[in-house]
Amino acid sequence: MLVRSSTRISLGAAYYAEYQAAERLDVDLDLMASAGLNVVRVGESVWSKWEPEDGVFSLDWMTRILDGALARGIGVILGTPTYAIPPWLARKHPELAIRRRDGRRIGWGARQEANFTDPLFRSYAERIIRAILAKFSHHPAVVGYQVDNEPGLEVIYNENVFEDFKASLRSQFESVDALNAAWGLTYWSHELSDWDDLWPPEGNSSPQYDLSWREFQARITHEFIDWEASIVREYCAPEQFVTTCLAYSRPSLNDFEINSTLDVASGNAYFGMQDHLDFESDLAPIEPWASTGPWGLELQADRMYSSKQARFLVTETNAATVGSAHRNFPPYDGQLEQAGVLLLARGARMIEYWHWHSLPFGAETYWGGVLPHNGVPGRIYKEVKAFGDKLAAFGDLFDGFRPDADIGVIYSNASKWALEFQPPIALADGTADRNSYNRIFQAFYRGFSQHGVQARLVHAEQLEALSPSELVDRHPVLLAPAL
Amino acid sequence: MLVRSSTRISLGAAYYAEYQAAERLDVDLDLMASAGLNVVRVGESVWSKWEPEDGVFSLDWMTRILDGALARGIGVILGTPTYAIPPWLARKHPELAIRRRDGRRIGWGARQEANFTDPLFRSYAERIIRAILAKFSHHPAVVGYQVDNEPGLEVIYNENVFEDFKASLRSQFESVDALNAAWGLTYWSHELSDWDDLWPPEGNSSPQYDLSWREFQARITHEFIDWEASIVREYCAPEQFVTTCLAYSRPSLNDFEINSTLDVASGNAYFGMQDHLDFESDLAPIEPWASTGPWGLELQADRMYSSKQARFLVTETNAATVGSAHRNFPPYDGQLEQAGVLLLARGARMIEYWHWHSLPFGAETYWGGVLPHNGVPGRIYKEVKAFGDKLAAFGDLFDGFRPDADIGVIYSNASKWALEFQPPIALADGTADRNSYNRIFQAFYRGFSQHGVQARLVHAEQLEALSPSELVDRHPVLLAPAL
Amino acid sequence: MLVRSSTRISLGAAYYAEYQAAERLDVDLDLMASAGLNVVRVGESVWSKWEPEDGVFSLDWMTRILDGALARGIGVILGTPTYAIPPWLARKHPELAIRRRDGRRIGWGARQEANFTDPLFRSYAERIIRAILAKFSHHPAVVGYQVDNEPGLEVIYNENVFEDFKASLRSQFESVDALNAAWGLTYWSHELSDWDDLWPPEGNSSPQYDLSWREFQARITHEFIDWEASIVREYCAPEQFVTTCLAYSRPSLNDFEINSTLDVASGNAYFGMQDHLDFESDLAPIEPWASTGPWGLELQADRMYSSKQARFLVTETNAATVGSAHRNFPPYDGQLEQAGVLLLARGARMIEYWHWHSLPFGAETYWGGVLPHNGVPGRIYKEVKAFGDKLAAFGDLFDGFRPDADIGVIYSNASKWALEFQPPIALADGTADRNSYNRIFQAFYRGFSQHGVQARLVHAEQLEALSPSELVDRHPVLLAPAL
Repeated sequence: MLVRSSTRISLGAAYYAEYQAAERLDVDLDLMASAGLNVVRVGESVWSKWEPEDGVFSLDWMTRILDGALARGIGVILGTPTYAIPPWLARKHPELAIRRRDGRRIGWGARQEANFTDPLFRSYAERIIRAILAKFSHHPAVVGYQVDNEPGLEVIYNENVFEDFKASLRSQFESVDALNAAWGLTYWSHELSDWDDLWPPEGNSSPQYDLSWREFQARITHEFIDWEASIVREYCAPEQFVTTCLAYSRPSLNDFEINSTLDVASGNAYFGMQDHLDFESDLAPIEPWASTGPWGLELQADRMYSSKQARFLVTETNAATVGSAHRNFPPYDGQLEQAGVLLLARGARMIEYWHWHSLPFGAETYWGGVLPHNGVPGRIYKEVKAFGDKLAAFGDLFDGFRPDADIGVIYSNASKWALEFQPPIALADGTADRNSYNRIFQAFYRGFSQHGVQARLVHAEQLEALSPSELVDRHPVLLAPAL
Repeated sequence: MLVRSSTRISLGAAYYAEYQAAERLDVDLDLMASAGLNVVRVGESVWSKWEPEDGVFSLDWMTRILDGALARGIGVILGTPTYAIPPWLARKHPELAIRRRDGRRIGWGARQEANFTDPLFRSYAERIIRAILAKFSHHPAVVGYQVDNEPGLEVIYNENVFEDFKASLRSQFESVDALNAAWGLTYWSHELSDWDDLWPPEGNSSPQYDLSWREFQARITHEFIDWEASIVREYCAPEQFVTTCLAYSRPSLNDFEINSTLDVASGNAYFGMQDHLDFESDLAPIEPWASTGPWGLELQADRMYSSKQARFLVTETNAATVGSAHRNFPPYDGQLEQAGVLLLARGARMIEYWHWHSLPFGAETYWGGVLPHNGVPGRIYKEVKAFGDKLAAFGDLFDGFRPDADIGVIYSNASKWALEFQPPIALADGTADRNSYNRIFQAFYRGFSQHGVQARLVHAEQLEALSPSELVDRHPVLLAPAL
Repeated sequence: MLVRSSTRISLGAAYYAEYQAAERLDVDLDLMASAGLNVVRVGESVWSKWEPEDGVFSLDWMTRILDGALARGIGVILGTPTYAIPPWLARKHPELAIRRRDGRRIGWGARQEANFTDPLFRSYAERIIRAILAKFSHHPAVVGYQVDNEPGLEVIYNENVFEDFKASLRSQFESVDALNAAWGLTYWSHELSDWDDLWPPEGNSSPQYDLSWREFQARITHEFIDWEASIVREYCAPEQFVTTCLAYSRPSLNDFEINSTLDVASGNAYFGMQDHLDFESDLAPIEPWASTGPWGLELQADRMYSSKQARFLVTETNAATVGSAHRNFPPYDGQLEQAGVLLLARGARMIEYWHWHSLPFGAETYWGGVLPHNGVPGRIYKEVKAFGDKLAAFGDLFDGFRPDADIGVIYSNASKWALEFQPPIALADGTADRNSYNRIFQAFYRGFSQHGVQARLVHAEQLEALSPSELVDRHPVLLAPAL
């Protein structure tokens, strides 16, 4: 398997041949090969292209992409397209729309609007996954699979999810009295007399309830991804891997839990460029989902490593400007290499840019790719190629590599959720900062990084089974910020 | 009656034995007695404990609290628990949920979500009030009653309230033409042809309409509290008093009107501590419901005095940090006494801390009590005890006391509402400041206070019956900021 | 015709005799005449006065206003009152309420809440328009008509509008595949399989879709105004004109398109006064709908000229303070004349203040008129009169006048909408600035103005038919900011 067992670091890009205004598949693949790219991710965003009408499949267009990649020694990560349902499905089944806390259903028209816990959604998703896998899983270009994409975007308030939540509590607590006691529901007259007394989360003010609700939301994200992975595995060759790409900032995600049944952890690392990559930078992040400072990127990589305590794939990262049209900060010369080397040093086995070609349409038209809008290789392409040459020169240097760590630091998704509900620190204007957990955690992390201390992030869950002496052996210095 | 006729200032705390994780009633009461606390407020937040299932009552748990208090000479203010309805009631009758201006019903899960004007709510409320009162009104520890809690939190847009509003206008105006003229409804084509033409307040832009609507909202709050008080009085001994505790910042509240049928005015005075209590402080308030500056606390006390032009009870005030977890400003040494003496000097007959014991769960987990989370008396307890000793030393010093006043100042809830709708002053960012009335009023008040001028607040309604000469006699200097 | 063919500049005010608390028609008209006012606008806001009950008309009250104006040589612009529907209509037909993007219907109680595309609305509107026109179109005081008022306030999401939008796409594109290609709907799985797959705009994230939607919204505004104008023209004498007054900042408005079937362009020019009118001012606008700087007012005038490339009417502009109660910036001495002369120099043929008399009630109580609240002429009246005297002295000076222009500048409503959806520049806090188009455009315009360069604004649509050589002939220098 190219990516999993390669003695080389993989370099690549998300590639959407189907988005191009004019035919240019061979041009693109030649340019990739010439720049040292040896992996692409394809197909995860276009269910409507795979299945233009209900039950009518159109799969052949992918064949020549895979053939072209194979011909140039480029491995392919094939995506399942379930994160963006086609308009015919949204029209036929408006009940699939996610209901938010305010009681309103998300209007269709972006992506990730569907309640993936709904059995009806599952039946449609399963059909398209099986159609794609049956056709392409034996194609020799395919090195692995990405199921879905950046899961956990929403906290889902649909009725069936709330009912499942109640059922999970019923199996967790032996009686309503046990729940009353555990959550302290005497307070403000919240004691249940019956399981059906459990109030919907929309109006909830109990921190104990909220934490359970958030844990449950992460669990259903995990269950969904695990369900997809199990279908894919029916078709998978032993040397192919199954992963999903994580935006680690998603609200309904426990990266430890979700990766427990995947082969390799994959993450999307977006970061501030230009002066943000100065060692001393104290700029604010440009977006909640983007890090600032080299230390911030280091933290992102260490989070990815922590999910499985193993090396990982970077499925998306900056090529040029990232985000919306009003964010125009392309990298300075050399910064792509700076970031790439940092990711490798912290455990990345693959670096994939998002994306190959800046788009001619759509919401992300101004999110820059390796190629600019006109498709002509320019400065960014040249920088990527230089980095590709360097990786080739590394050869098998990273075989068996494990990133250094001077200390251990405990990361806890549960603590993050708890401190979102009852934030312990304030913003400058005096209101509560829902990002309190990260602020505290990052203050430590920045200090480590800027003083040359490398950290091993460990999930609270990963320490549970250890005896005290094992714990001390493994982590002589172990910090627990805001746990 | 302990509180009403005592020659001593009362000192106490809200006490929720039912919130404690472990049994500690005797420990708590002993600690209170030792600190000089002679009054507690109990029971107002736990309808679900009083009535765990529809029609199933559980009252006995209160007996030992009352017995324990009595044994130590601690008087008890018994609360009716109607401000927080139990989950079984919310589940059986979702139509009781308050509808807000945006047309959405408040999700159950905090408190004060129920439309207290609904006859169904009233029947449930009456049943639990009668059950509690029948059992405990003769208990010798009980010195008085608090009905409901901090009423007037919402502006209620439920259909029945709007219909009652229309009915009240019909009785106030002899015809729609009279209303058209009074409200100036020619403007923007708003003239009614029929009473049913009156549009719901959700879309209203007429200031005349809005003011009537707000006055009506305060009136229904008053009517509800008066209704509860009248039930309680059926059980009340002559020496027991009936009050409710007011958060004076509530939007649907006219403190003059609501106190007109209560025995004594009670208010909750929260204030900024630490540097906020510096005489020269010009810090912004930490929350809309908390005052800043000694002058701000003085104003709170004078508002309480003004409600009935009589001395009053402070039913809640800071012990330690107040508000959410991100507000961590416990008092400096001595500030509890500073605030306490100020309240006494402006007419308080009782000071009750909120609350005795920091909570182990719930939305107010980080709202500090006299005791910290571990239940072990610490610095705050010591300060409270010192203040309790001082009060004991005062003895009957405050008998017949009436706070000084150099000038009179008119306060008008109606003006406050009018200036919320059409604010005359802007915020720093240029948008309208709905808090304009208070800003203007407080600018005067701060000036008075910082220059040693004590004021007697009077409600506009309290002056209506006076002749000009009576007015001049009573208030030789009378200011009317932003009337 | 007074306004259209007069050799004098017209000066006037919006006049609402029906809003006055006491009878003062003759006083008002005498004061106007004495100040040199020779035009008033009347009647556009009071459908409920014209038709107090469904089908019951009350028209006579206007007769004496027209008679009184005629007697003093004051021309009258008669308004159709369709922008503010009466309460009986809102009550009988709640389905007329506009539905916003959030799915909620606008509550009735201000104005412009009705879906003017609804056939039912049209039938009611037609009836009242015909009633008013039949009675007053022959009155010799009437010089012209304003249909509706400041149209295009809302983006209308009602079902029938969305269906009309789909129909317009069906006629514009020959198939869904053509639309899929034109809008790039492969992206994020948005390809339509059928016209009914088109998703409602509430959830849309496609910029191509959004631009079409916004263009469609402007088109229905145009169609509505054109429909009203065509009814009015059935009654109109040849020397009477038909216009509507535009708030150029309205979201659903293409001023070029809407004026294509009107006789004269009319606009409402509100501007910051006091230091805002300093030549070097760099103050921020006080409201999104108000300009800052003399250059900003110049830009407003040039926009009005551009709509028809012809001189225009200013139907509303500052007399005293404008906007809400917290905006209190009446003009310095002389500023009304400063602004008036500027408007004339850039092509205004009429200047009408909004409004004659500050109102005793309603949402705009603190929007100052020529007369203050007490109705006694004061400083503003004196300034207006001085300006009126100056205009009288000008006589026919402006006959045949065409404002100077050193350069041409292209204005594009479509570009403005596109850049609202994908703003290219950020606000100070880093978020996207939906006002990006105007910011870019205004940066150029301010530079022109402050360096003595006068510009001719031209709509992109006005250049389409020109050959390159015609274009160069007409605009040797032609700028296209943010096109």
